[in-house]
Amino acid sequence: MSRTAGCWQSCVRHVFHYETVKTLVIPNVRVGCVFRFTQLLVLLYVVGYVCVVQKSYQEKESVVSTVTTKVKGFAFTNTSTGNWKFWDVADYVIPPQGETSLFVLTNMVVTPHQTQTRCPELPNPSTTCVDDCDCIEGLSDPRGNGIQTGLCENFSTTVRTCEVLSWCPLEIDSELPERALLASAENFTLFIKNSITYPKFNFHRRNIGSHISSSYLQSCEFHRATDPECPIFRLKHIVSEAGEEFQEMAVKGGVLGIIIDWSCDLDWWAETCHPKYSFRRLDKDPASNLAPGYNFRFAKYYKTQNEEEFRTLFKAYGIRFDVIVFGTAGRFSIVPTIVNLGAALAFLSLVPVVSDWFMLTCMRKGDLYSRHKVTHLHEDGDAEAELTSTSYGTQ
Amino acid sequence: MSRTAGCWQSCVRHVFHYETVKTLVIPNVRVGCVFRFTQLLVLLYVVGYVCVVQKSYQEKESVVSTVTTKVKGFAFTNTSTGNWKFWDVADYVIPPQGETSLFVLTNMVVTPHQTQTRCPELPNPSTTCVDDCDCIEGLSDPRGNGIQTGLCENFSTTVRTCEVLSWCPLEIDSELPERALLASAENFTLFIKNSITYPKFNFHRRNIGSHISSSYLQSCEFHRATDPECPIFRLKHIVSEAGEEFQEMAVKGGVLGIIIDWSCDLDWWAETCHPKYSFRRLDKDPASNLAPGYNFRFAKYYKTQNEEEFRTLFKAYGIRFDVIVFGTAGRFSIVPTIVNLGAALAFLSLVPVVSDWFMLTCMRKGDLYSRHKVTHLHEDGDAEAELTSTSYGTQ
Amino acid sequence: MSRTAGCWQSCVRHVFHYETVKTLVIPNVRVGCVFRFTQLLVLLYVVGYVCVVQKSYQEKESVVSTVTTKVKGFAFTNTSTGNWKFWDVADYVIPPQGETSLFVLTNMVVTPHQTQTRCPELPNPSTTCVDDCDCIEGLSDPRGNGIQTGLCENFSTTVRTCEVLSWCPLEIDSELPERALLASAENFTLFIKNSITYPKFNFHRRNIGSHISSSYLQSCEFHRATDPECPIFRLKHIVSEAGEEFQEMAVKGGVLGIIIDWSCDLDWWAETCHPKYSFRRLDKDPASNLAPGYNFRFAKYYKTQNEEEFRTLFKAYGIRFDVIVFGTAGRFSIVPTIVNLGAALAFLSLVPVVSDWFMLTCMRKGDLYSRHKVTHLHEDGDAEAELTSTSYGTQ
Repeated sequence: MSRTAGCWQSCVRHVFHYETVKTLVIPNVRVGCVFRFTQLLVLLYVVGYVCVVQKSYQEKESVVSTVTTKVKGFAFTNTSTGNWKFWDVADYVIPPQGETSLFVLTNMVVTPHQTQTRCPELPNPSTTCVDDCDCIEGLSDPRGNGIQTGLCENFSTTVRTCEVLSWCPLEIDSELPERALLASAENFTLFIKNSITYPKFNFHRRNIGSHISSSYLQSCEFHRATDPECPIFRLKHIVSEAGEEFQEMAVKGGVLGIIIDWSCDLDWWAETCHPKYSFRRLDKDPASNLAPGYNFRFAKYYKTQNEEEFRTLFKAYGIRFDVIVFGTAGRFSIVPTIVNLGAALAFLSLVPVVSDWFMLTCMRKGDLYSRHKVTHLHEDGDAEAELTSTSYGTQ
Repeated sequence: MSRTAGCWQSCVRHVFHYETVKTLVIPNVRVGCVFRFTQLLVLLYVVGYVCVVQKSYQEKESVVSTVTTKVKGFAFTNTSTGNWKFWDVADYVIPPQGETSLFVLTNMVVTPHQTQTRCPELPNPSTTCVDDCDCIEGLSDPRGNGIQTGLCENFSTTVRTCEVLSWCPLEIDSELPERALLASAENFTLFIKNSITYPKFNFHRRNIGSHISSSYLQSCEFHRATDPECPIFRLKHIVSEAGEEFQEMAVKGGVLGIIIDWSCDLDWWAETCHPKYSFRRLDKDPASNLAPGYNFRFAKYYKTQNEEEFRTLFKAYGIRFDVIVFGTAGRFSIVPTIVNLGAALAFLSLVPVVSDWFMLTCMRKGDLYSRHKVTHLHEDGDAEAELTSTSYGTQ
Repeated sequence: MSRTAGCWQSCVRHVFHYETVKTLVIPNVRVGCVFRFTQLLVLLYVVGYVCVVQKSYQEKESVVSTVTTKVKGFAFTNTSTGNWKFWDVADYVIPPQGETSLFVLTNMVVTPHQTQTRCPELPNPSTTCVDDCDCIEGLSDPRGNGIQTGLCENFSTTVRTCEVLSWCPLEIDSELPERALLASAENFTLFIKNSITYPKFNFHRRNIGSHISSSYLQSCEFHRATDPECPIFRLKHIVSEAGEEFQEMAVKGGVLGIIIDWSCDLDWWAETCHPKYSFRRLDKDPASNLAPGYNFRFAKYYKTQNEEEFRTLFKAYGIRFDVIVFGTAGRFSIVPTIVNLGAALAFLSLVPVVSDWFMLTCMRKGDLYSRHKVTHLHEDGDAEAELTSTSYGTQ
């Protein structure tokens, strides 16, 4: 036999001779039961929890979404001075385009006909004055409303304040109506069109399902129990679903989240993948009542015949509706499946360790089993002392 | 030997004497082949599928993005009454700021010089009347346009309807032009600036790559084949890429998604991480044609010399372009690598089970192999009956 | 013994007789040390890196967020012609609602009193003309400003250009002030209210924590070192935090990202889950300086006494603040824990392979160990040649 041939043979043996472990069969039903029961536990976890409950065999993806909103309704207000005003969508929805976030005006402080001129400041400890010496020309107090001219003027018959350059007359926002001006906004309806995509799964859907008919859409109104799929919401209803009182919220404004959950299982129930609506007030939390409410200022600009600009300033209070779309879809994928099965298999490989421990320490005949299972090699000779040695567990 | 020393020795044995399994080498090439082939399959899966195809050794993160948009172009309209009107960006883009979602006006119903006054309702079964008795003062029908005054007035020479308090004259939105007013909007161009971040990987990028020159940017126009990286889009082109007809869509409006996919592999091809653009109409789906289109109402407010307010109401139809940015970047990370390798190792530990089963049941000499591999212990004595017992698999 | 009973016995044996591997104890401390050390390494990785550093036992979820913003401050501008103008929030914040993305006007080109009429084009090589023959009636150059009437008119005393139908006079946007008009915008403050949700964990929080008092909120100002939780930001401060100069950025505008990171560990430190603010300029990147800046055009519309419309066109430059909220929360979950432990266990099953290799090849007595560990079966007979065969590794 040449050296090369011997090398080759050795290689073939290494690679293609199969090396298998030697085993010992213990004819004891109690040990067998422990072994099978532990195996069963691991299998139950894999099949029951990982697959059925957690669906870990699925690849996940987050939703991509677009939203279109449309408010309907009109209101009629009467001021104490006998003037009436009619409000429609173009008047009270800001911005008008109907995007993800829309604002419905419910209350306001109006300051009409402001021009760029000079007027006395609103009275407060830092602006009241006795004569011109108390006012500094050019001073611009960040908490004030303009740049002081250095003059002290009559704000009212009793109070004198420093004069400022500003949009005059100044807004007096302490005179907020206690009952919301557009209290009837509670009956406005909001139509939400929502189109979603799971790009990786090439799955598209709208919240107006294909089983919704045109006539249903014209007459329905969302209700959790009776019409859970109708995309038309009465404002009062969604505010009360969020646990708030519309009239109370309308006075100082607020932010209301309309949360659309598109979590879906695309393996089995893709056909029944429908949005779930929920509602939550977002501008305050139970732990802290700091800075709730929602308001902003905007102006309408006009010009007089002489091209002089004047404006009407609005401090607008109202409810901002934020449509928040989220969701995760899952679809069977080989990688998470393999990873989870692999983890389960790894746990199965723990089962013999547990069974061996049970067999060698808890059984009466553990000593006997150990003698047959474990061979002790002695360092000083190559003789085996298999059957006469005592097991390591009991010495 | 004292008891403590014995205990100590026993401990050392437990911990530092190495317990290895006894094995049996089967010099059979067929069994060896089955073993190696199954091992190969598992390795192929790990290297080929998990690593190369699925890149499971990577940690994933979703994109964070900001978008700036800018429309260019002007249009010229001629009404039947001979009036012409020139339209530029400030007239037809709403809102003007150029954010993620922008609206290009293409068609409209204009109701000029509305004032807060009284006028007869639009005729429909519930508003037509014969005399004042048919109208109820103060009635506010949600499907109507105002609050009834209780009078019955001539809407036209032939029809009488109940009078309402409202913004008058009322909008008649059935007179929508059949050909879009700003049909030439199809030649407007849209410039999209998109800046993205993968925060965890500290990776920033813009859709205007560093290899794009200023002169290219001034003259290019997006085309999937010839200019796939140019961030300037002709409106007609992107609508047709979405499989729609611009002129048809312009009449009743719609929502068009400009989808930018930033999926990147940051390990190898970070330099070639470029956006991929695609386009999809979002306001209708093939399954259901309910409620397509996109329109909203807005008003421009004016004041007369006597400070009386009037407005021009626009029912604006047009195309809303929603820039939707998504993507997932992956970068090598130790944890997913370990998890996937671990799962593969767990599967490797299944290979001997398969090989043993093959050896003991499918081979002619299975019986012989079994006798040498498996030892049966007899409960009644501590004698082993190794070589004379018959294997459990064949009795 | 009947055949059925035999079958039954065989089944019971299969299922409930426990088959355990036969092992050999090697009384060699070096091999034992290698074995225990490798085990220790794997355990250290699992406990130390996977659990403590990477928190892989946690399920992750991305944040869902809403943002409300409010700017405070006023400015005063003086034009060279001696006119002063006062600017407040309603004048310089666009849009006024205070959403995620808000724009603060800092510079502008104003073109007052534009009407729909005819005027000579701005001079450039394609619009200058000598007489009417150089101008084509009806031509609408996309790089021009209107539709040519076919006449050649005096633009100035020296230059003649083609006349166009357009909003006239045309905007001359090359006359941008070199020092930003509203330079004092740097002292405006921005109040950000941010409310977040981790829906799967039912965890809600605001950036105004419950430990922040109302009085602190009235006087505080964000500073990374001294006031890291104050949600009120001075514009100059956040621009400089982003590494930019406010006055420089104010001239041509820009986009500034206010990035709020809500990454939280909800197992241990849910109470200390606070936002971390950072700032970054988004409209340019270091690699390429193409197309930086931010501007858009908008108009205010007016009507004359005769109901003719005119407008004031603004080319608005300014800083758009984009509030970008991101974050991932983790909470203990059984599935990722099991997967990671499983992967670690799989690696533990590699340890004996390593130890065996070390024992058989690196040890002096490897030959001896091999003889006792490995049994070679000879194909030609069922006799074992256990102790006299030489080990496969050393032949």
